[in-house]
Amino acid sequence: MSEDAIQKFRRIGIVGAGNMGTEMAMAFSEMGLDVSLWDVNSRNVDEAIEMSKSIHKKRNWEGFHDVHDFVKSLESAPRKLFMFSITHGSPADSVLEKIKDDLAEGDIIIDGGNEHFIAILNGGSGYQAARRGPSMTPGGERKAVEEVLPLLERYAAKDSNGNPCVGYIGPKGSGHYVKMVHNGIENGFLSTLCEAWSILRKSLDLSNDEVGKIFERWNSEGELKDTYLVQIGSEICQRKKTPEGDANHEGRGQGGYVLDDVLDKVVQDDDDSEGTLFWSIAEAADRHVSFPTNAAGQFFRVASGDRDQRLRAAHKMQIPQPAKAQIQHKDTFIENLRRAVFASFLCAYCQGLELIARASKDEGWDVNLGTVVRIWRAGCIIKEEYIVDMLQPIFTSTTEPITNMKLIDEVSAELHKHYQALQEIVLRGVEWHAYVPSLSASLEYIKYTGGTMLATQFMEAEMDFFGAHNFDRPGVPGEDPGKAKKGSHHYEWRPA
Amino acid sequence: MSEDAIQKFRRIGIVGAGNMGTEMAMAFSEMGLDVSLWDVNSRNVDEAIEMSKSIHKKRNWEGFHDVHDFVKSLESAPRKLFMFSITHGSPADSVLEKIKDDLAEGDIIIDGGNEHFIAILNGGSGYQAARRGPSMTPGGERKAVEEVLPLLERYAAKDSNGNPCVGYIGPKGSGHYVKMVHNGIENGFLSTLCEAWSILRKSLDLSNDEVGKIFERWNSEGELKDTYLVQIGSEICQRKKTPEGDANHEGRGQGGYVLDDVLDKVVQDDDDSEGTLFWSIAEAADRHVSFPTNAAGQFFRVASGDRDQRLRAAHKMQIPQPAKAQIQHKDTFIENLRRAVFASFLCAYCQGLELIARASKDEGWDVNLGTVVRIWRAGCIIKEEYIVDMLQPIFTSTTEPITNMKLIDEVSAELHKHYQALQEIVLRGVEWHAYVPSLSASLEYIKYTGGTMLATQFMEAEMDFFGAHNFDRPGVPGEDPGKAKKGSHHYEWRPA
Repeated sequence: MSEDAIQKFRRIGIVGAGNMGTEMAMAFSEMGLDVSLWDVNSRNVDEAIEMSKSIHKKRNWEGFHDVHDFVKSLESAPRKLFMFSITHGSPADSVLEKIKDDLAEGDIIIDGGNEHFIAILNGGSGYQAARRGPSMTPGGERKAVEEVLPLLERYAAKDSNGNPCVGYIGPKGSGHYVKMVHNGIENGFLSTLCEAWSILRKSLDLSNDEVGKIFERWNSEGELKDTYLVQIGSEICQRKKTPEGDANHEGRGQGGYVLDDVLDKVVQDDDDSEGTLFWSIAEAADRHVSFPTNAAGQFFRVASGDRDQRLRAAHKMQIPQPAKAQIQHKDTFIENLRRAVFASFLCAYCQGLELIARASKDEGWDVNLGTVVRIWRAGCIIKEEYIVDMLQPIFTSTTEPITNMKLIDEVSAELHKHYQALQEIVLRGVEWHAYVPSLSASLEYIKYTGGTMLATQFMEAEMDFFGAHNFDRPGVPGEDPGKAKKGSHHYEWRPA
Repeated sequence: MSEDAIQKFRRIGIVGAGNMGTEMAMAFSEMGLDVSLWDVNSRNVDEAIEMSKSIHKKRNWEGFHDVHDFVKSLESAPRKLFMFSITHGSPADSVLEKIKDDLAEGDIIIDGGNEHFIAILNGGSGYQAARRGPSMTPGGERKAVEEVLPLLERYAAKDSNGNPCVGYIGPKGSGHYVKMVHNGIENGFLSTLCEAWSILRKSLDLSNDEVGKIFERWNSEGELKDTYLVQIGSEICQRKKTPEGDANHEGRGQGGYVLDDVLDKVVQDDDDSEGTLFWSIAEAADRHVSFPTNAAGQFFRVASGDRDQRLRAAHKMQIPQPAKAQIQHKDTFIENLRRAVFASFLCAYCQGLELIARASKDEGWDVNLGTVVRIWRAGCIIKEEYIVDMLQPIFTSTTEPITNMKLIDEVSAELHKHYQALQEIVLRGVEWHAYVPSLSASLEYIKYTGGTMLATQFMEAEMDFFGAHNFDRPGVPGEDPGKAKKGSHHYEWRPA
């Protein structure tokens, strides 16, 4: 079957010779496909072709400056297959405009960029996975996706049982949507883990090496086993500078950590190079899905970007900065931190899955969450084996779509189990002036999604006061708990 | 001038005879205008006219079932003036479609509903202020807005010096945008205050009356003086049920608090009856403005709506609920809580103003923030005198637009001053299992917008690992602090 998948296309046309596109070209080339490469910027093409000469490659590569020549090069193949790897939005449309007259029925375009959920396919990964095989959540016309699925299965990351991390998601838009939500969850994961790292480094005053070893242990067993960001985090913490540095002579030095050379500015929002992470926040707001862990991570990174203004504000504000804390039971604390990180990951994950479930219902996509979490087993940033091991059997065995993840027994049991550890970490983090935006957002999320009488009782009364928004009454059948719709009572708190 | 304002129009045509529309009709009627009233639902019209008969009214009211008769009734006036008070979105467009052939040049339509910032005028208030005079942030063609400004000045809420809370905001869309952001800040205010209320009620075990007295004191002096939500909160807390109840016999009982009859479900998101609050979150995400206090409030209320599911999840999760806490220095704690509420309000306010500043810059609106905060002095939900007293002179005296509120000396001094109180409240709130989503989001916001080396250092390294996102280096001129743009270095943490 694998050979068939190759023979069906023989050659792939890659649009976009940037970082991701070149890595994809190399991956497909190694799988046995010839490669045609085009980019609106001819220099990118030349550089990629030059680079391809310097490495061992099994198949023929051709670079093109003219887009029509590029399309023509694919005509010898049984059917034309394109992979777009370009900036999201109008660039993809403008390329499509350029080549559409050269296309024949049955030709297939895979849009591998990040789109605002209006296109057809997506990988869940950075350039690292583009090379080694990403997880992919293709959506679009089922027949078209199924045509390329065998090829994508060869390209895709494989989970620990060797199963490819790819599968049909749903109609047009749904695949990109799932990828977008993946990146929203990534916000929560990234923030949670950097908060933990900072507590270990600044509050516990551990060395990078020590933190790296802790992450290594977290990644080897228990709830954080085989978690991608923890795994690469352990490598990052322990990476020392060397006299030669890397292939491009970055990270040169006599010892010392590469990580210490990294500033705290995350600028992908400021320079508009990354859409999906904040799109997911806007989508959650629009669809009324509570998304606090992931939003907190997003607003944290947004605030980090302009370091110049931040330093000036810091100079004026004179807020205490994270510093070494007095701590008695260090090992217990670190174990609580591990559990807190897991609890926050689980919150981020729940919020993301609930957003997918809501969108799937709204749009009639019928997305199978079992397929989604299976695809996220490997080759993606939010790879977290324990969570998928917990959720996949549940999603696979249920016939009724699950829209509230906290109603899953296993999820609520985990949240219960780790609540105290998370509470302890937030307490200490707040006490120590450490950064805990996502960790504390997760703690609040657990509290209020599992709360029987929320502070919003007072909010509801205030809204009825100024806006006649109505309310329901406790203990009244049909009202308590009642439906999530306008209440039955308005009290005239102050005659208007 | 005031009489001229009335004579220029003599009659106003109100579209929409719901709660808000009827209150507006009464207000304009009392100002001396005749009123024509139309609604797509004729029953609403009949009810409003019936109601108008039962109250003292100075002017003639006419209700219409036919929209063309309605428009014709305005033709005796020097120029036709309409106030739309209908559900946001397509209803306004469809009414416009119906009446547009009957309009003449110079007729004016005021869109008083909440629009997704594509229309022309807005009040910053609920039905209470619709009757007593709202604050209004009209945008649109300057000439048209200036035509109605004298009338709006009569209608508008007056601040403590008697100045009307209305003023020209900017081109089409800008007025609605400012109103939308007002409602985003409202999220943060509402959440912050309900969190404080819940701590006082549940953790300190105070009675509603006691909490009401505390709010009364907060509202009478210091940083929360003349804060609308605190003021109505003090009334809400102290309102007892009576044998007769209100005019509609709500709140009947032998003593006991009306507030105790209010459930904790805030459902305006679930039933889609309120757009602006979550639009502001989506806008903040889209424009890369850090908005955590207001977003936390939004995600809290979203999670409160479906009480049925929440109770089922709570039953499974078995998380500790807020309960009476041991507390030694109650008065000191309550004073810290007051200061924490103020700090969180100020964070919410900063986030909102920064969103307006960003949008104004992006869209070329040239919105004057001094005008905005002046308009918010009265007649709106986020009325907070101390903050406006602090900000208005600064915005008025500066020539350079201010985009980062933490760079204002007075703002950073306040955040510094109240940091510890806010920290103390979040600590105790977390310890006591109380709800502190917005309070803790504000604390984190202060920490990370005033932090010199954030946890995002590690996030940045992880993003460079998996996505080759690059980084800048500490201490390198041009990089540290450098610009908020893609960094100059990529380290090949693991060869791809």
